[in-house]
Amino acid sequence: MAQKPSIPKGTRDFGQIEMAERNYIFDTIRSVFRKFGYSQIETPAMENLSTLMGKYGEEGDKLLFRILNSGDAFAGVDMTRPLTSQVCEKGLRYDLTVPFARYVVQHQSEISFPFKRFQIQPVWRADRPQKGRYREFYQCDVDVIGSKSQLLELELVQIADEVFRRLDINVLIKINNRKVLSGLAEICGAPDKVVDITVAIDKLDKIGLEAVEAEMIEKGLTPEAVKLLEPVLTLSGSNEQKIASMRSLMAESQIGQKGLDELEELFGYIKAAGIETACEIDLSLARGLNYYTGAIFEIKALDWQIGSISGGGRYDNLTGIFGLPDMSGVGISFGADRIYDVLKGLNKFPESLGGASDLLFANMGAAETAYVLPVASGLRSEGLSVEIYPESVKLKKQFDYADRKRIGFLSICGENEMAAGTIQIKNLRTGDQQSFDKGDIASMKAFIKA
Amino acid sequence: MAQKPSIPKGTRDFGQIEMAERNYIFDTIRSVFRKFGYSQIETPAMENLSTLMGKYGEEGDKLLFRILNSGDAFAGVDMTRPLTSQVCEKGLRYDLTVPFARYVVQHQSEISFPFKRFQIQPVWRADRPQKGRYREFYQCDVDVIGSKSQLLELELVQIADEVFRRLDINVLIKINNRKVLSGLAEICGAPDKVVDITVAIDKLDKIGLEAVEAEMIEKGLTPEAVKLLEPVLTLSGSNEQKIASMRSLMAESQIGQKGLDELEELFGYIKAAGIETACEIDLSLARGLNYYTGAIFEIKALDWQIGSISGGGRYDNLTGIFGLPDMSGVGISFGADRIYDVLKGLNKFPESLGGASDLLFANMGAAETAYVLPVASGLRSEGLSVEIYPESVKLKKQFDYADRKRIGFLSICGENEMAAGTIQIKNLRTGDQQSFDKGDIASMKAFIKA
Repeated sequence: MAQKPSIPKGTRDFGQIEMAERNYIFDTIRSVFRKFGYSQIETPAMENLSTLMGKYGEEGDKLLFRILNSGDAFAGVDMTRPLTSQVCEKGLRYDLTVPFARYVVQHQSEISFPFKRFQIQPVWRADRPQKGRYREFYQCDVDVIGSKSQLLELELVQIADEVFRRLDINVLIKINNRKVLSGLAEICGAPDKVVDITVAIDKLDKIGLEAVEAEMIEKGLTPEAVKLLEPVLTLSGSNEQKIASMRSLMAESQIGQKGLDELEELFGYIKAAGIETACEIDLSLARGLNYYTGAIFEIKALDWQIGSISGGGRYDNLTGIFGLPDMSGVGISFGADRIYDVLKGLNKFPESLGGASDLLFANMGAAETAYVLPVASGLRSEGLSVEIYPESVKLKKQFDYADRKRIGFLSICGENEMAAGTIQIKNLRTGDQQSFDKGDIASMKAFIKA
Repeated sequence: MAQKPSIPKGTRDFGQIEMAERNYIFDTIRSVFRKFGYSQIETPAMENLSTLMGKYGEEGDKLLFRILNSGDAFAGVDMTRPLTSQVCEKGLRYDLTVPFARYVVQHQSEISFPFKRFQIQPVWRADRPQKGRYREFYQCDVDVIGSKSQLLELELVQIADEVFRRLDINVLIKINNRKVLSGLAEICGAPDKVVDITVAIDKLDKIGLEAVEAEMIEKGLTPEAVKLLEPVLTLSGSNEQKIASMRSLMAESQIGQKGLDELEELFGYIKAAGIETACEIDLSLARGLNYYTGAIFEIKALDWQIGSISGGGRYDNLTGIFGLPDMSGVGISFGADRIYDVLKGLNKFPESLGGASDLLFANMGAAETAYVLPVASGLRSEGLSVEIYPESVKLKKQFDYADRKRIGFLSICGENEMAAGTIQIKNLRTGDQQSFDKGDIASMKAFIKA
């Protein structure tokens, strides 16, 4: 009868401490999103497969979790044709971006644009599970759609700046622009080689200038084009200097100049707003090159070795596939699992997290319990989290319970306290102990919250 | 190319206002759970079908959403055998109770018992969608497992009392006990007729005494047994009087007396703790008769016509099916969708909900934007939610945006303000307008938060 219970591979249970730590991340992110006027939305876990399919490439389609049609899914299927599409009409969402695009199009008449939304929900991918890669994980996305103003890029940089300062993680915000990359490809006479060029630039640190140049030639660039790009590969100095160098290099490229204008404007805003976090132009950012059309962001933790912990960019045609063209938007996504790993690795979670209660009343019997019940209620009314141990078992066991649940204060009230009308409370961390009049809730609170 | 987007039937999108209203419910419930020392856990959306199947009856098995195995699900299947079980190993969780039982058994060595947990997550059921019934909906469950103490029943009553007082919903907490029902069936000489008797009692208000007695006879009770039950059917008076009447009626039934002892103890606790909400013995509560073993709870909204908005009870063998016998627990579940309907129907959501931002800075151009940027940052540092309209379009459009997003304050700063070093802020509700020194963040905050 009894089964040994387990959960599907790549999924996780989150217990008391882990939940408290995760909620600390989500609550921080959420409160910053709200300060900038972003409103939360939620979409269903299940979307029609027609909404999801073809949006993530061929590989993505394979990684969708499909849901068997309810009722008798196999009734009337044609066994000579592929079965999957006949028996599954719905799938679990793969990210929050496509559901967001679908939401915007479906609800366009109710939405006031520019539409600033955030969304924190799990997504599911049938990836091969491995360390740090799960089949169910949360995404935290913040996007604004319906305006081309780069004040919105600034807002996302401000949000990232504040989120990571609050979480006490040192980060570098790397910024690129898709139009600048197009400009580079253009001056090389290879407008179709944007990705190859960007990927090659990204390898500079690892394999050196010569190897990068060799790779570009191998990818089909002419030696002249590669020579032309050399100043880009060796680009250094301040953001202003980088922009100036590229200005002269790409004098011939209209789209390149447009991209530099955008970078210049954005860095102007960043300066005016007084962003504290370091922001740096990085031409090797190759994130989302097939859909980003303007700014590209990537955020790196400086004190912990891990990939990017946040990233995003501007897209000009997210909703086009659902019939609403020309809606420009920009967004970034915070990687909750990686942020978790950084905070854990650097031991930066606040110490107080995960303690479920402030105070435990030990259970000394029925009469004693009736005596402390109103005191417990009084303390709860003052906002404290208070437990009464449910059974009058050995004190050792009750102590252990307080210890394992990280409860900081214990009250043991027996016959003496009842006779005297007092309440004893002990600070389990310091050993400090005090006695209070049973009606003096305020002093008890002050002792516990000191 | 363009598809008309939609979502699967029985599922919902939640926009800005609805999310704020729903979060108000969840935040209230969560904060009360925490005050009583319950910790949050989360379990995966997908569970192994072996965990879910057979736990909800035959009907429940049919309502499980099954997930097609990833990879080529149909490779190597035996077409002569039923396909579903060959191609689906996982399903979406149907409730939070079975995953909780699975969690407790799987993590028993890490858990400190009694284990007080709450869980607020969506569940999925392939029910036929209809008004008020969805295929995806949230459950808010609070349970404690590993103790038989009725102090825990009291805690759940305290939690319900506080949740509904905070939400400003008048409720009646109805309490029954499974052992009392068993006692009634026993004295009727029909221990297998517990459900029939309870269901018949439940119809008393609607069909009257005679019809109820006729129905019981039809269900196989003897006329003598029905006569014996008559005092129960016409039971009235205080909870103490009801208990006393049943004491004499069930003098012969050991289990009945045990149930009455439990009711008496629980009502004693309720009195000692000073619960404000009305609590009433109701023998017709038939919730979960196949798994509840002690107390049964149901909570009814008094001012709005709807089924129960919360309910639960004590179970003695929840984890037995997963190989951990003799773990008694008790829990209640809050029906978020019904609570939402009550608050909406009674117009009891706080007015301030759903306003995404406190203040919108109108966009009057690039120089003006640079002028207000540090002020916006300053106000956000003080905890305000502040937006800058991203484009310098007509003021009418910017006003409309503030209006539709329920933003209460608008600042229009043009050349005059820049020259004077001031910030104008207008209260859009009262029309009240004031001018501030641009560095005087504190006064602006006071004006907005007044």
